[in-house]
Amino acid sequence: VKHTAPLSENIVLRNLTQKFRRSPTQIGGLLESDAELLKLEDGSVLALSTDNIVEEIAVGLYTDPAQIGWMTVMANLSDLAAVGAEPLGILLSQNFPPNYPQDHMEALQSGIAEACEQANVYVLGGDTNTSGTLQMGGTAVGIIKSGPVITRKGIRSGNLLYVSGGMGTGAAYAFETLMGAASTLGFRPRARLKEGQIVRSFGSGCMDTSDGFFPALCNLMEVNEIGFTITRPFSEFIHPDAFMVATKNKMPGWFFLAGPHGEFELMFTIPPENEALFERHAAAINWHPVKIGIATTTESCRIQLPDGTWRLDPCQIANLYEESDGNPRILLSNLIKKQTIWQLP
Amino acid sequence: VKHTAPLSENIVLRNLTQKFRRSPTQIGGLLESDAELLKLEDGSVLALSTDNIVEEIAVGLYTDPAQIGWMTVMANLSDLAAVGAEPLGILLSQNFPPNYPQDHMEALQSGIAEACEQANVYVLGGDTNTSGTLQMGGTAVGIIKSGPVITRKGIRSGNLLYVSGGMGTGAAYAFETLMGAASTLGFRPRARLKEGQIVRSFGSGCMDTSDGFFPALCNLMEVNEIGFTITRPFSEFIHPDAFMVATKNKMPGWFFLAGPHGEFELMFTIPPENEALFERHAAAINWHPVKIGIATTTESCRIQLPDGTWRLDPCQIANLYEESDGNPRILLSNLIKKQTIWQLP
Repeated sequence: VKHTAPLSENIVLRNLTQKFRRSPTQIGGLLESDAELLKLEDGSVLALSTDNIVEEIAVGLYTDPAQIGWMTVMANLSDLAAVGAEPLGILLSQNFPPNYPQDHMEALQSGIAEACEQANVYVLGGDTNTSGTLQMGGTAVGIIKSGPVITRKGIRSGNLLYVSGGMGTGAAYAFETLMGAASTLGFRPRARLKEGQIVRSFGSGCMDTSDGFFPALCNLMEVNEIGFTITRPFSEFIHPDAFMVATKNKMPGWFFLAGPHGEFELMFTIPPENEALFERHAAAINWHPVKIGIATTTESCRIQLPDGTWRLDPCQIANLYEESDGNPRILLSNLIKKQTIWQLP
Repeated sequence: VKHTAPLSENIVLRNLTQKFRRSPTQIGGLLESDAELLKLEDGSVLALSTDNIVEEIAVGLYTDPAQIGWMTVMANLSDLAAVGAEPLGILLSQNFPPNYPQDHMEALQSGIAEACEQANVYVLGGDTNTSGTLQMGGTAVGIIKSGPVITRKGIRSGNLLYVSGGMGTGAAYAFETLMGAASTLGFRPRARLKEGQIVRSFGSGCMDTSDGFFPALCNLMEVNEIGFTITRPFSEFIHPDAFMVATKNKMPGWFFLAGPHGEFELMFTIPPENEALFERHAAAINWHPVKIGIATTTESCRIQLPDGTWRLDPCQIANLYEESDGNPRILLSNLIKKQTIWQLP
């Protein structure tokens, strides 16, 4: 029995791609992984992802050219992280408006170079065009030389649900930037590349939270036909910076788990028999992922804490931004409506 | 001694990328090949190219959605053809304006699907965004499993210059479409994938003519620090359709070799010792490339026919569109000025 709404973005994408044949060397189906996986003849697997920074610039979420450059790289690398691939490089697609200022151009390229340096990744090539507005895009290329692959699919009931780090920073940043609140946060996430490689070795399913926590949760539920029970209070895995912004603005912390602008962390599952080994490998790189719940056969989402049980539908949350016509004020009022119904802790 | 102007587009690209480090596994330098080439550990070579259809849509060169879809695929595959790679697939980046009509959307996806079918290539994935105007992009991925690689660089004096087919169709189409002439031509080029693989086996340098004949010639001269002598009359390698449009409009045929919208054929060189073997392999797939000249040590371009010798600078032609502020009427009048000076046959 499904207790979730279908994810509207996935319906659009299924419709858009219905005329295309699928490559016989591609692993998994449509929407089943963050990066496309292609078997090569020597047994290695190529990982490819295209991600563009268009709407983020158009709505004024990213305004600093250096940040735009950084995000162009990191948004793409984050998809490689989610499949545990080792990055080979990135191709860029840069569309500049006529007379884009030279100092902005240089800051943007510096942002790209800094992100590449941080992740130890190279710009392989690209294409540059003139367009009405600034638009950036990239295609990240990575490789999985050996070992298992990991996609969004493969999660079984009883698998342990983790997030790679504190949640909500992307949405808190968006809230401050777009709602005109006094800005306290910057936003320059790092793709969880090393972490993703460990997850690939021990995990059963993985996705990045580039669209936010609940949209990722909804996707994993949909593709695996499972549900989740969350056993850790939101306050323990929402990033302190995001929690502070929520508190200051008298909002429930979970509003920043709603997306559509996420934190570029990883959400993944580990079969219980791999838990100890996984945690040991994570600790070895000084990484402390947060175990927040467990996968269930019932296709719904429950929060189960010592002081009570709550039900919610992550897919309804994931669809809210589109239902709000992309307007952050309407999104906020819709979140308030959901809170009135669900009364989440 | 150089008798050529520097290519202004290449100056811009060198400037744009100066902050980026080059991957140690990448073959060749910046602007030295149509697709980026990356050595894999098993000895095979990955070929990657990103190409966007932005300005072509903005100026009204491509208006039919099915043609836009077709070109998005073929423009990218043509770069794989130029390095002789076997295509693995393509990732798409589709930016739609809000309320883009459903029938246009479907026609566009059909155009993509038809181009993929023609080339036996798969759509691997992509990203979709909402933007102010329709913009398409793609990243083609291919592989060279074994054998030599070919780039733009490697041409030596005495190598024979070829084009893969009739030239000028892209520019003739652009002339009719943008100058409001009665339209007689469509434009749905096919990437020269099979041909490129033969060229890779026997050639010394290769580039596609997506920006036109003379811009390709200029690029090959610049990167190889060589010149060319063209020994075949233009009328014998300009496509009959293009020649007909030129004649009808009382223009010299070579105007359609100027770009910036090319024909997506290949321009390449074959060392004379490989000529016979190359021609035999070409004939075996029923392909008849046209030998048009020879590479020279002098860094200039000469046309040498039984009835006379002419000099021209392909790089001056390649820079004309930008010097004409992207205006096809100004471009035409600038071409007329060049003809007054060069008096080409």
